[in-house]
Amino acid sequence: MNNGVSILAVWFLTAVLAHSAEAAADREKLLKDPGVYGTFAVFKVDGDWWKLDKNVRGSAAAEVKNVFQKHADKVVTDTYLLRGLSEKADFFVRVHSTEILDNQNFLVDLMGTTLGKYLHNTNTFNGITKKLNYVPGFPEELKEALKTPPDPGPKPYVIVVPIRKDAEWWNMPQDRRSALMKEHTDTTVSYLKTVKRKLYHASGLDDLDFITYFETAKLDDFNNLVIGLERVEENKHNKQFGNPTLLGTIRPLDEILEVLTR
Amino acid sequence: MNNGVSILAVWFLTAVLAHSAEAAADREKLLKDPGVYGTFAVFKVDGDWWKLDKNVRGSAAAEVKNVFQKHADKVVTDTYLLRGLSEKADFFVRVHSTEILDNQNFLVDLMGTTLGKYLHNTNTFNGITKKLNYVPGFPEELKEALKTPPDPGPKPYVIVVPIRKDAEWWNMPQDRRSALMKEHTDTTVSYLKTVKRKLYHASGLDDLDFITYFETAKLDDFNNLVIGLERVEENKHNKQFGNPTLLGTIRPLDEILEVLTR
Amino acid sequence: MNNGVSILAVWFLTAVLAHSAEAAADREKLLKDPGVYGTFAVFKVDGDWWKLDKNVRGSAAAEVKNVFQKHADKVVTDTYLLRGLSEKADFFVRVHSTEILDNQNFLVDLMGTTLGKYLHNTNTFNGITKKLNYVPGFPEELKEALKTPPDPGPKPYVIVVPIRKDAEWWNMPQDRRSALMKEHTDTTVSYLKTVKRKLYHASGLDDLDFITYFETAKLDDFNNLVIGLERVEENKHNKQFGNPTLLGTIRPLDEILEVLTR
Amino acid sequence: MNNGVSILAVWFLTAVLAHSAEAAADREKLLKDPGVYGTFAVFKVDGDWWKLDKNVRGSAAAEVKNVFQKHADKVVTDTYLLRGLSEKADFFVRVHSTEILDNQNFLVDLMGTTLGKYLHNTNTFNGITKKLNYVPGFPEELKEALKTPPDPGPKPYVIVVPIRKDAEWWNMPQDRRSALMKEHTDTTVSYLKTVKRKLYHASGLDDLDFITYFETAKLDDFNNLVIGLERVEENKHNKQFGNPTLLGTIRPLDEILEVLTR
Amino acid sequence: MNNGVSILAVWFLTAVLAHSAEAAADREKLLKDPGVYGTFAVFKVDGDWWKLDKNVRGSAAAEVKNVFQKHADKVVTDTYLLRGLSEKADFFVRVHSTEILDNQNFLVDLMGTTLGKYLHNTNTFNGITKKLNYVPGFPEELKEALKTPPDPGPKPYVIVVPIRKDAEWWNMPQDRRSALMKEHTDTTVSYLKTVKRKLYHASGLDDLDFITYFETAKLDDFNNLVIGLERVEENKHNKQFGNPTLLGTIRPLDEILEVLTR
Repeated sequence: MNNGVSILAVWFLTAVLAHSAEAAADREKLLKDPGVYGTFAVFKVDGDWWKLDKNVRGSAAAEVKNVFQKHADKVVTDTYLLRGLSEKADFFVRVHSTEILDNQNFLVDLMGTTLGKYLHNTNTFNGITKKLNYVPGFPEELKEALKTPPDPGPKPYVIVVPIRKDAEWWNMPQDRRSALMKEHTDTTVSYLKTVKRKLYHASGLDDLDFITYFETAKLDDFNNLVIGLERVEENKHNKQFGNPTLLGTIRPLDEILEVLTR
Repeated sequence: MNNGVSILAVWFLTAVLAHSAEAAADREKLLKDPGVYGTFAVFKVDGDWWKLDKNVRGSAAAEVKNVFQKHADKVVTDTYLLRGLSEKADFFVRVHSTEILDNQNFLVDLMGTTLGKYLHNTNTFNGITKKLNYVPGFPEELKEALKTPPDPGPKPYVIVVPIRKDAEWWNMPQDRRSALMKEHTDTTVSYLKTVKRKLYHASGLDDLDFITYFETAKLDDFNNLVIGLERVEENKHNKQFGNPTLLGTIRPLDEILEVLTR
Repeated sequence: MNNGVSILAVWFLTAVLAHSAEAAADREKLLKDPGVYGTFAVFKVDGDWWKLDKNVRGSAAAEVKNVFQKHADKVVTDTYLLRGLSEKADFFVRVHSTEILDNQNFLVDLMGTTLGKYLHNTNTFNGITKKLNYVPGFPEELKEALKTPPDPGPKPYVIVVPIRKDAEWWNMPQDRRSALMKEHTDTTVSYLKTVKRKLYHASGLDDLDFITYFETAKLDDFNNLVIGLERVEENKHNKQFGNPTLLGTIRPLDEILEVLTR
Repeated sequence: MNNGVSILAVWFLTAVLAHSAEAAADREKLLKDPGVYGTFAVFKVDGDWWKLDKNVRGSAAAEVKNVFQKHADKVVTDTYLLRGLSEKADFFVRVHSTEILDNQNFLVDLMGTTLGKYLHNTNTFNGITKKLNYVPGFPEELKEALKTPPDPGPKPYVIVVPIRKDAEWWNMPQDRRSALMKEHTDTTVSYLKTVKRKLYHASGLDDLDFITYFETAKLDDFNNLVIGLERVEENKHNKQFGNPTLLGTIRPLDEILEVLTR
Repeated sequence: MNNGVSILAVWFLTAVLAHSAEAAADREKLLKDPGVYGTFAVFKVDGDWWKLDKNVRGSAAAEVKNVFQKHADKVVTDTYLLRGLSEKADFFVRVHSTEILDNQNFLVDLMGTTLGKYLHNTNTFNGITKKLNYVPGFPEELKEALKTPPDPGPKPYVIVVPIRKDAEWWNMPQDRRSALMKEHTDTTVSYLKTVKRKLYHASGLDDLDFITYFETAKLDDFNNLVIGLERVEENKHNKQFGNPTLLGTIRPLDEILEVLTR
């Protein structure tokens, strides 16, 4: 390559990166703000995929990366490997944006790739983030405890638990529901350091009321947390808790594609 | 082409269009009248479809358009993209006519096309529109509020929620049911501007009692509307609410076919 | 063709028809008598069927007609198109005989044809007809009303609703069940002209207690009839009502085969 | 073939048959004794089977017969045709032995044949026979009635009804359960001549408590028997009754293979 | 091979074995310790597997053995044959390690083999072992009884029963739950010699609360044990008991691979 070309290439790359920096969706903001739509798209790979030539699968992986790149200015994505720990699926993508149409367009493109044509979309959960509902009414002490930051360090495991409440729950007066949610929240305090959580509201967007999302490095703690949550009265109003519970590991897209192209 | 032929062609085209104008089903009327049959036919595309040559898929799309055209004098159709937002299916067609046999004949033709042979018909909901049941007995104030027209502007999102009531509901005296429906309806008033709805009665035509159909531009409002509806007593009598809830976007047929023929 | 041959052919045809007239199962009798076994065999066509050559499908249709013919002395059959109005299946055959083994042998032969090998048997309901259970104890006025003949004219729509009662129903004293069935029957009186019905008892022959079969030209009346039946107390004892409800159109075998061989 | 060889062959065959007579599992004993394991293996034939050449299917059938023969010294088998009367499957095999490992080894061999590779094993029920539980405590009159032998003559129909009781049933005091079983048994007395039955205990060996097996020539009697059993209080404690109920005809292996190789 | 090479080979093999001995996961410890993660991965072989050439299947089996070997320093595995005794699957692998990521990595590798690509992962149960919950509070006599060692000799049968408790169970005060568990445990005493058991806690790691694992040579004893457990009050709080119950035989990997490569 002669100098002229290499300079051009560098300039081009710089331009692209600059543009990408400007345009990329604001990850921090989307992961914290209320009013953000989260779509959890869960996929199982068809048996025929594995019969494709390794090279074909390799270039299919590159095509997938391009789709993620192409939509990076509209949606923020995270990827997770379920394979080996769940019979339900092989992996899932969590997609965030302020307009769920952007989630749809990204996923339609993803499912339109060569790999996408071999994916069975076994579950899709849709939800929206909101300001905390009950916390403002909690006692100061509990509010303070809830500020405990999670321990630093990687939290390699992910768990997603979809939830649907019964009609009795929704028909309770607000202060009764609030009292039960305080009891529920008390249980979580001892696990704030080791279990990170995020909540999505799903009523009407899916056959669910909530999508609860957890990250942890200590699954034994998570098991104890769930047992604690089973022991409070609010649990009597969970018409659906899990089914499916998704247990997997947080993995970059490259690692998931590597598993699929071996 | 010589003049004589071209004049003939123009005349022929005019005649066809005129005829088509005369014969086309009256969309406005069918979407408002009672006694109209609505069939919601939900489809998932088979994996083998994507293995077909792009050209073959292209001409298959043209064939589909012809079927829609051919039946346009009997049925009114709307199309919706679910792909990306629902694992249940890729798209659905809502078909209206005054004789459900016409819905069947259209759908049999659609399923008989090249594309149709690669479609899995994952759900079909059948219902009939009726005059409002409870509204005539509501207080004047509520009746007035219900006249609020929806905000102008596009409502790109669609949600379909099939519903089945329990035997206790149907065995209630009419005035008790009416009181509960008033409470239900009160909840909807604040959302009349942003959420359009349409109701179909399905008892005996399907394993449902109602098909509820919504259009909105604001899914956060829709989420709040559903939470409101969950909080009234009538909700205790929903044996089935959703399952499946269909969330998608309203898209012209061409756009859906474009997604399938990329 | 010379005269000798043509005469022979006519003679042969006459003989066959005469024999067929003698041997054919007595349709009127089988459709009215108690002690007759009805088998509803519901089928969905496999996607691979449509990939067969049109000619192959055509001769497969002829083969099917022969099987119907061959068993016509043992079983009486009716055919119905579900495709387009139900995701559950494409068509079903109702088979009547006095010995259910004859139903089985016919269906084994049907499923053994070229078409049959591409059929998924999605449901089979088995039942037996009986003398009316509760009617003899009803008031004279109701008994009289029940004699109302259906309006003449074609009834193109069919609905099949399988039913299972709960243990409380079966454990009720006979006179209590009878009182509830009177209330149920009262509801049906206004629909006797537009909705024809037939009842099969299925306990032990299937995972059902009853198969209810309806024909009508007015689906709006049928919808109202079912709403009426939902409003009586007996409905509280329906553990299963539909699931699947089969809605379709009555069509001669030729028309169903035509849909499958286009 | 010369004489020496033919004599040898005859001698060999005789020896084999003699050995076979000695070694064959004792059918009468296995069908009557307590402590015998019964495995009901239910199969549906894959659509691809029918695309095999008739010759290939024919030799596959011979292979199946060899497997039955090979295990005849360990297990006793009966075969039943469901095809045509049940959407659930095409046929099932009932296998008896004193060691369930022998049932497994036989079925692994069966599923390892050419035909076996095209079989979907849609259900397997495992149970063990036991001495009668409640009968010893019944009144003498009922005990006497229970000795009624079934009418002679063939009973071509088979029905298998798997059953699971609720926790309330198992938590009842023994004498209460015994009283309810007496009421249950009273109902069966009038059907002892026309309906033969056999009971297997399945708790822990399957997701069932009982497998009930019936043979009859009179399905109308069987229908009435089941209605009678639905009318007793014990029925309120059936968490599962059927689902699936298997209705079919008793057929020798040869006849089932003939249906599959036509 | 000359002497120098053979000596080298011996040395190399010795080194490998020594390393392997050092590195192999400590089976005894992993099977006894609390805080160990157990993953039960259940597989059904796809029909297409059997259409592969016997040689291809043979080398695929060798590949599977290598994967087991490769992960032997991280995970302890046991293999079980379900085929013939369960329609749910053909075999399962129980995987133990102190970090569930190791279970996942092993299973991802296993599913990435040639055989793995033909496996349907029909169920995966995840759980963690813990110190005994209720035993410390039991009376001394019961504690003593629980020390009864199982009879020596092989226990060829395996049963896995996944369990989920209802919200009422978890909301009980600890001493009430403890009293019910004592009643439960009393029932098991007479079966300690013939039925070995192991318990995994699964709340939050799966849609289960417990995975119960049993080994026995006497399935009649196991059937009686389960009937005993059904008769105690704690059983009223089992929302799920089995579904699926997995019944199979303990078999070395080689034997399972032999069944799959015949």
